[in-house]
Amino acid sequence: MSIAFPMFRGLSAFPITPTDAHGQVNTDGLVRLVQRLAAAEVDSIGLLGSTGTYAYLTRSERRRAIEAAVGCLDGRVPLIVGVGALRTDDAQDLARDAKAAGADGLLLAPVSYTPLTDDEVFEHFVAVAQATELPLCIYNNPGTTHFTFSDDLVVRLAEVPSIAAVKNPAPPPTEARARHEALRARVPSTFAIGYSGDWNTPNAVLAGGDAWYSVVGGLLPVPALGLLRTAQAGDEAEVARWNGRFQPLWDLFKELSSLRVMYAAADILGLCRAKPPRPILPLPPAAYRRVAAALETLDAGGR
Amino acid sequence: MSIAFPMFRGLSAFPITPTDAHGQVNTDGLVRLVQRLAAAEVDSIGLLGSTGTYAYLTRSERRRAIEAAVGCLDGRVPLIVGVGALRTDDAQDLARDAKAAGADGLLLAPVSYTPLTDDEVFEHFVAVAQATELPLCIYNNPGTTHFTFSDDLVVRLAEVPSIAAVKNPAPPPTEARARHEALRARVPSTFAIGYSGDWNTPNAVLAGGDAWYSVVGGLLPVPALGLLRTAQAGDEAEVARWNGRFQPLWDLFKELSSLRVMYAAADILGLCRAKPPRPILPLPPAAYRRVAAALETLDAGGR
Repeated sequence: MSIAFPMFRGLSAFPITPTDAHGQVNTDGLVRLVQRLAAAEVDSIGLLGSTGTYAYLTRSERRRAIEAAVGCLDGRVPLIVGVGALRTDDAQDLARDAKAAGADGLLLAPVSYTPLTDDEVFEHFVAVAQATELPLCIYNNPGTTHFTFSDDLVVRLAEVPSIAAVKNPAPPPTEARARHEALRARVPSTFAIGYSGDWNTPNAVLAGGDAWYSVVGGLLPVPALGLLRTAQAGDEAEVARWNGRFQPLWDLFKELSSLRVMYAAADILGLCRAKPPRPILPLPPAAYRRVAAALETLDAGGR
Repeated sequence: MSIAFPMFRGLSAFPITPTDAHGQVNTDGLVRLVQRLAAAEVDSIGLLGSTGTYAYLTRSERRRAIEAAVGCLDGRVPLIVGVGALRTDDAQDLARDAKAAGADGLLLAPVSYTPLTDDEVFEHFVAVAQATELPLCIYNNPGTTHFTFSDDLVVRLAEVPSIAAVKNPAPPPTEARARHEALRARVPSTFAIGYSGDWNTPNAVLAGGDAWYSVVGGLLPVPALGLLRTAQAGDEAEVARWNGRFQPLWDLFKELSSLRVMYAAADILGLCRAKPPRPILPLPPAAYRRVAAALETLDAGGR
């Protein structure tokens, strides 16, 4: 397989973006998280993804976050930056900012208020892709954008120069292979098909997926890499064993959202004490204790 | 019935906000639309609602729009202003701006990216309600915010001082009375229960609803008032006759979204030539012709 854009393959780790209560990025805290990912040798870093609360940050704070990450990475790990915005012109400006600040690739979600049509999303993506020459990954995240990309639309977008990858929600394991292969057959071999939704993604990689866009990998890159490498090696038994270690965390992700759980985990692990942007509230103490227990299960190698 | 806040009763007309391609408000165009509503003697004007594309406008442009509307209304019609934002602190700032610019009431939608919990929405609404003394209407618009208010949550919010009304999606006609009365029984008599979703709202007013938050009323206030007054008078046969005149427009609203249809209608009627904010695209010529035909049906008094 051709690997035109290696940044869209393997483990892409999505850290939270620590801020103060007014949405000002704590660049020291962010650099600590990014350094930890570089030290673990993740395959790429997904800055300002959904977990990185891009939607809640101003243009200038998003730029500060990128500059801080680029400054500390010094090219060691490819940096993919989320440039989603409600308005097309704003997303274009964010793409130009990301390029100017040193990003290696872009991640674009069709953020919506008024529900969008396929044609509107297509034109939006073409406009943002043309704003820079950086390779762009389609961010298909129906849970936050409320827009679902059909395979037809992905195929159409895959023909646009510089649109190089898709980040799809990982299907349930029983459907993963059929759905992956159906899309794989319709896009160029250079086009990368990756997945997110941590609990289902290892199976989607077993089914041929090119990348794991990972929330847990943004905070716990070492076990996430352990799990991913077994999936890349096609070792189903080892994937199942690793999934067992992660299971309590997967359950909390599904119940409380991975974003809220990661803020609690970052605090519990002593990595940073940021709160999510209001209106999102920090988890209450009882949920904190469940997150701590899930981290212990992972650390202990399973229940 | 006590009518503590008359602005949350009757026809609340929601105009589009004409802008240029960069999101700068055309205040002359907006004033023309607002004057037309005042001349028709609507019961209130809902500026910067979903149809007013508040979500796509900067804080400063939203302020300019309010100042333009306040300036031309000179107190003739109560002005309700949408102050929704993803961040709680931003929504608070927008509420203070609206108050400072002369708004009479606020409309707050729980705009979301990360899906919100009931407790998060409750705290968000309390924080914004406390930012000013203006009466506030809960904007329950699941189609754009992807958050649905339960009656339980509305009841909880109705206890907050200054939260004075709810704008609920109008239920299907067969369910309107039961659902209206179920909520009515649980909130203070001073709390207004109004509806939006133009095609179902006349029946929700027949069922006891206090207000019609109307997209079509923002452009065609005279026939909208004709329809509303028959519903307020409880005249089911006349409501059915009016609904027949509006039916082709209701069908287009459901198929193409009321926002896209209103931009086309404003152009067809020669009221303003604005385009919706990209990524939302203007309707294609074939759809324009269908909008023109629907306007003719309405004008002719039915098919």
